[in-house]
Amino acid sequence: MNQQKFPELRALVFDVQGTATDFRSTLVEEAARLSQGRAGNFDWGTFVDEWRGLYRPALDEVLAGTRPWTPVDLIYREALDRLLTQKGLSFFSEAERAELNFAWQKIRPWSDVVAGLGRLKRGYKIATLSNADVSAVINIAKYGGLPWDAVFAAEMAGTFKPDPRTYNIALKYLGLKPEQVMMVACHKYDLRAAQALGLRTAFVARPLEFGPEGKVDTSFEEEFDVNARDFLHLADQLDC
Amino acid sequence: MNQQKFPELRALVFDVQGTATDFRSTLVEEAARLSQGRAGNFDWGTFVDEWRGLYRPALDEVLAGTRPWTPVDLIYREALDRLLTQKGLSFFSEAERAELNFAWQKIRPWSDVVAGLGRLKRGYKIATLSNADVSAVINIAKYGGLPWDAVFAAEMAGTFKPDPRTYNIALKYLGLKPEQVMMVACHKYDLRAAQALGLRTAFVARPLEFGPEGKVDTSFEEEFDVNARDFLHLADQLDC
Repeated sequence: MNQQKFPELRALVFDVQGTATDFRSTLVEEAARLSQGRAGNFDWGTFVDEWRGLYRPALDEVLAGTRPWTPVDLIYREALDRLLTQKGLSFFSEAERAELNFAWQKIRPWSDVVAGLGRLKRGYKIATLSNADVSAVINIAKYGGLPWDAVFAAEMAGTFKPDPRTYNIALKYLGLKPEQVMMVACHKYDLRAAQALGLRTAFVARPLEFGPEGKVDTSFEEEFDVNARDFLHLADQLDC
Repeated sequence: MNQQKFPELRALVFDVQGTATDFRSTLVEEAARLSQGRAGNFDWGTFVDEWRGLYRPALDEVLAGTRPWTPVDLIYREALDRLLTQKGLSFFSEAERAELNFAWQKIRPWSDVVAGLGRLKRGYKIATLSNADVSAVINIAKYGGLPWDAVFAAEMAGTFKPDPRTYNIALKYLGLKPEQVMMVACHKYDLRAAQALGLRTAFVARPLEFGPEGKVDTSFEEEFDVNARDFLHLADQLDC
């Protein structure tokens, strides 16, 4: 049915942090492990939420032109150092900070992702389109066994999503027209930016992105071409 | 033994056309099929050799700055049209020419490649570093089942190998230093350019690149860090 709905579709491009991977649980686990009990009963969940919270404003500075393009690895590291000081957790050594920051490159896929991508890959080209650094996206794929056909990232355009140049670099490198490519994301701003350029859109709800009590917009919307509960549900709807 | 020899090695980047794939046999087969007998006993092997022969001079024009960067797909297509006219084979329709030119994106891996890459992928990041267009490298991987961790191509640097910018883009996107990356190729000019930037080098002999009677330099050289008969022999030497 949906192959009739999207007869031109050839490729899917995916957001990674949040949409394909559960960064929060991975980061909380790593932070707790590396703290080696020195922080007592510290609430690492809230810490990771605040850490992630410092990420988007840094990207927006780049998008606003007030800061040059900066590797996301460095953005996370600067935010980590700032937070550790704020929270009185300065006992983390340089090596421990580096290891904790690297946890962003080991974030685990959601449980449906490997199986879902395996199915989608049979019908379409599947590639990342991430704000994370190319090297980080490769590491995440390697740790999680994600079978991408190609890795694209905003770094390749020297900017970040939702800057149109990011989506255009994926179209250029895939050699495809906008209507042949579907953006898959759990963040609606990302889908809306892709849609404005003529790409197809698939919203995937990730209710646990910010933890069991996190506020996440998981409502399906008619404005998107597909709405899915997870990657398996997406594969169902694309007849893969 | 060789993990001791290359303790810093983290990634391998591969030439695709020639090193990982047997373009000649694929192209000859497709040309013969698409000619539908209209060319009689035409020597498609020589035709493909001449076709490929027109490719490098076009790349060199770009490298010399006398021609802007051009998709390789277009370079092959221009060369095809020229050759078909020269050889009195103008009966090929537009659709047939497009399909024949697309055969460059379906070129088959050599028989050792899928198994060899599977082994190498367990120990290292494996990525392409090709002069072919990104979209072509993705298609080749898809048709041949090549399990790359990432696809890099000269297109991403707006130039071609052996321009240093091509190798540097792979280092940048991998987030690695030159000594952490090994260039794998059957073409010595490619390895020498990588070596000049500090990359490790692996020569893989491909005696059949230009067919059973083609002249190919397959001699092992001490100047390269590894010399291998094929990807399995390369995996042996890297303890994968």
